[in-house]
Amino acid sequence: MPIVKSIVKLKHFTTIENISNEEILTLLDRAHEFKAGASWEPRKKQIFTSNLFFENSTRTHNSFIIAERKLGLEVLEFDAVGSSLSKGETLYDTILTLDALGVDVCVIRHSQDQYYDELIQSPNLHLAIVNGGDGSGQHPSQCLLDLMTIQEEFGTFEGLKILIVGDIDHSRVARSNAQMLTRLGAKVYFSGPEEWYSEEEFSEFGPHMQIDNLLGEMDVVMLLRVQHERHTEDEGFIKENYHQTFGLTLERAKRMKSGAIIMHPAPVNRDVELADQLVEGSQSRIVKQMQNGVYARMAILEAVL
Amino acid sequence: MPIVKSIVKLKHFTTIENISNEEILTLLDRAHEFKAGASWEPRKKQIFTSNLFFENSTRTHNSFIIAERKLGLEVLEFDAVGSSLSKGETLYDTILTLDALGVDVCVIRHSQDQYYDELIQSPNLHLAIVNGGDGSGQHPSQCLLDLMTIQEEFGTFEGLKILIVGDIDHSRVARSNAQMLTRLGAKVYFSGPEEWYSEEEFSEFGPHMQIDNLLGEMDVVMLLRVQHERHTEDEGFIKENYHQTFGLTLERAKRMKSGAIIMHPAPVNRDVELADQLVEGSQSRIVKQMQNGVYARMAILEAVL
Amino acid sequence: MPIVKSIVKLKHFTTIENISNEEILTLLDRAHEFKAGASWEPRKKQIFTSNLFFENSTRTHNSFIIAERKLGLEVLEFDAVGSSLSKGETLYDTILTLDALGVDVCVIRHSQDQYYDELIQSPNLHLAIVNGGDGSGQHPSQCLLDLMTIQEEFGTFEGLKILIVGDIDHSRVARSNAQMLTRLGAKVYFSGPEEWYSEEEFSEFGPHMQIDNLLGEMDVVMLLRVQHERHTEDEGFIKENYHQTFGLTLERAKRMKSGAIIMHPAPVNRDVELADQLVEGSQSRIVKQMQNGVYARMAILEAVL
Repeated sequence: MPIVKSIVKLKHFTTIENISNEEILTLLDRAHEFKAGASWEPRKKQIFTSNLFFENSTRTHNSFIIAERKLGLEVLEFDAVGSSLSKGETLYDTILTLDALGVDVCVIRHSQDQYYDELIQSPNLHLAIVNGGDGSGQHPSQCLLDLMTIQEEFGTFEGLKILIVGDIDHSRVARSNAQMLTRLGAKVYFSGPEEWYSEEEFSEFGPHMQIDNLLGEMDVVMLLRVQHERHTEDEGFIKENYHQTFGLTLERAKRMKSGAIIMHPAPVNRDVELADQLVEGSQSRIVKQMQNGVYARMAILEAVL
Repeated sequence: MPIVKSIVKLKHFTTIENISNEEILTLLDRAHEFKAGASWEPRKKQIFTSNLFFENSTRTHNSFIIAERKLGLEVLEFDAVGSSLSKGETLYDTILTLDALGVDVCVIRHSQDQYYDELIQSPNLHLAIVNGGDGSGQHPSQCLLDLMTIQEEFGTFEGLKILIVGDIDHSRVARSNAQMLTRLGAKVYFSGPEEWYSEEEFSEFGPHMQIDNLLGEMDVVMLLRVQHERHTEDEGFIKENYHQTFGLTLERAKRMKSGAIIMHPAPVNRDVELADQLVEGSQSRIVKQMQNGVYARMAILEAVL
Repeated sequence: MPIVKSIVKLKHFTTIENISNEEILTLLDRAHEFKAGASWEPRKKQIFTSNLFFENSTRTHNSFIIAERKLGLEVLEFDAVGSSLSKGETLYDTILTLDALGVDVCVIRHSQDQYYDELIQSPNLHLAIVNGGDGSGQHPSQCLLDLMTIQEEFGTFEGLKILIVGDIDHSRVARSNAQMLTRLGAKVYFSGPEEWYSEEEFSEFGPHMQIDNLLGEMDVVMLLRVQHERHTEDEGFIKENYHQTFGLTLERAKRMKSGAIIMHPAPVNRDVELADQLVEGSQSRIVKQMQNGVYARMAILEAVL
């Protein structure tokens, strides 16, 4: 059982951009320690967490529940449909209620960008907010597990070449990952449909190029989910076309550098972002990303407690 | 850690009117003890509770779950939508099933008045029923937490003047609170729209008057939620009008007696029943009511176990 | 506390037909032991179960949860509506996710026949699958609890005469029960509407006859639920007719053999399959079936862990 080096103390965990490199590396250390079997110093009193997922999620939601239970926390599942929110109660008043009831941490996924701002600014709320994804803004726990997976593979971020492919503009992870990876010394590239990449927003992190011009040099190929919810047929989106033009086909995967890995936040659209056979193939770290998510979230929860 | 004075034994907890004053005071003592940190004598066998909320509720539902977990009980969440009730199974047969499966306590909220009658009369059901609110009938755990909050503030009920404002007829708490407070020595007054107050039903507990004629003398101003679900626009309900005519405006709050408190069962319609700023203001005990709800419910659950 | 004789080891529990008689009898022994108070040897690490009920169920679902909690397992409730399945994710990819997150057992009810085939054949899935009911195919945990209830009553299956009445073709339990009871030495008979009985499929297990020609000799009368979901009014289904022609009326129940018992998987349509008064009457073992279900499921879960 590894020795606990140090634990980051955070009041909330809402965005990853305002956390220092040192804090990130300490969180990652702690996540690796949890994966290696470290346990949490148990508290005398019960600690209550409430998970409020206003948007669908299998991975993130269950991953947080398992992380909470592994830490010995009490878990309250908040049913957005069966709550007073359907009587018109605001998110603020719902969180005020949970705070009054003695909840210590709320994990929230919500469709509104930066929904957490009014919550963390209120002097009357004492609980910690952990952002499980907001609007098309942030998904900081996904960013941490992505970093963890890359670090586990390569030991460092310094000098790695990382390609992010897909809907850069609407992704909750592209922006955070691009910024964090750059800060930690990696070099980021983008690919996918040009209309899904805003030059003015992302060019500071890296150039946008054809996937075939980059693939052979990349250490990590990180594919983003095509959000069929957003891109309707009238935009002329055809799965097969996407796969052939922008996706990681079997043919392209063969041209990847030796030792290079494939990542995807999932759920995967098989044969769209990448070929069906690659999802569980030897180059893929997609299953490992899901595994690591539990430990990354344990580190996050520990930091805010 | 305080010494346990005595514990009330109840078979069910469905209405508060048929519980003696002495039993109520003992339940309140126990609730205060739980708040002060008393713990429950742990049982050797697991105790299973099932929460059946057929109507939306954030506060009551989560409050019961937390109370149950603080007592170390096993909690089964019953999903009314995903149950055999949607195959046409009756409430009785559902409870018969849970009883057979080994559930010890069912907490039920249901839209039907006195849904619990057939359950507590059946010789084949062994589990305890705790009423989490029925029709426009009863909400006895809310009544107990209201009493707890008043007692915590004033130490006694004797001689207190308590104003209940709003939809007296359709409130689940107005009737119970009026009766219990009267029984315990307080003096009750009513206010709000006259058409929401049935003279024949409530005049035994206290008179109905204009809020401005009462406010300066009241120790407690208890506001009831306006149920927008019930009062549609075609009845000519206008929020701003209600607030100015019947609500606790900032101006009215200034005329409250020194030491007087504001209560509301929540969820609050801000700027309707009371001014937005008052909700979390210094006179308000609304957050404290929610806090106390957990301890009141621990006392209730203990009593039926 | 009884001594553990032996525990069956199963990789999955999907159908009961491919389990040997010896294994079935060992599972039944273990279920009786759990009912008598045996406890499970606790594991050092937390074990996570996930219940995925894509179809409504009160009994089976809650029964599994209670069995899981009695074994000290961690329970993840999977909300089929709030999951990524509504983003089009397949069942396979959902289970792959839960497997990656560290779930050890999935209990699944699904409308598709043999949904579990692709899951148990995948080399990339490590968790155990427990079938909580598939299509009109199997409901093996119901079969085990039925066997347990019969064994508890008569001590043996040898020579028992068992009548199964109702929609034989669409029942999830008729086929398994008929096969298992035959294998264990009982004699099976069928009754109910002839159009709900496929000669070629069921005649190997027993003949189809009028209920009144059989009733006096039967040890067990096992009634199947009329699935109103399946039999719409345009098929001319009339409850009262069914009850009089095929159902267990009060009059018929009087003609049952002394010591004979009534069974039903529930939920019961009172006054259709059997008379209302019989459901909780002295000949009925319907409540006992529900009780036994918890212990049968504990034995199943233990076997796959």
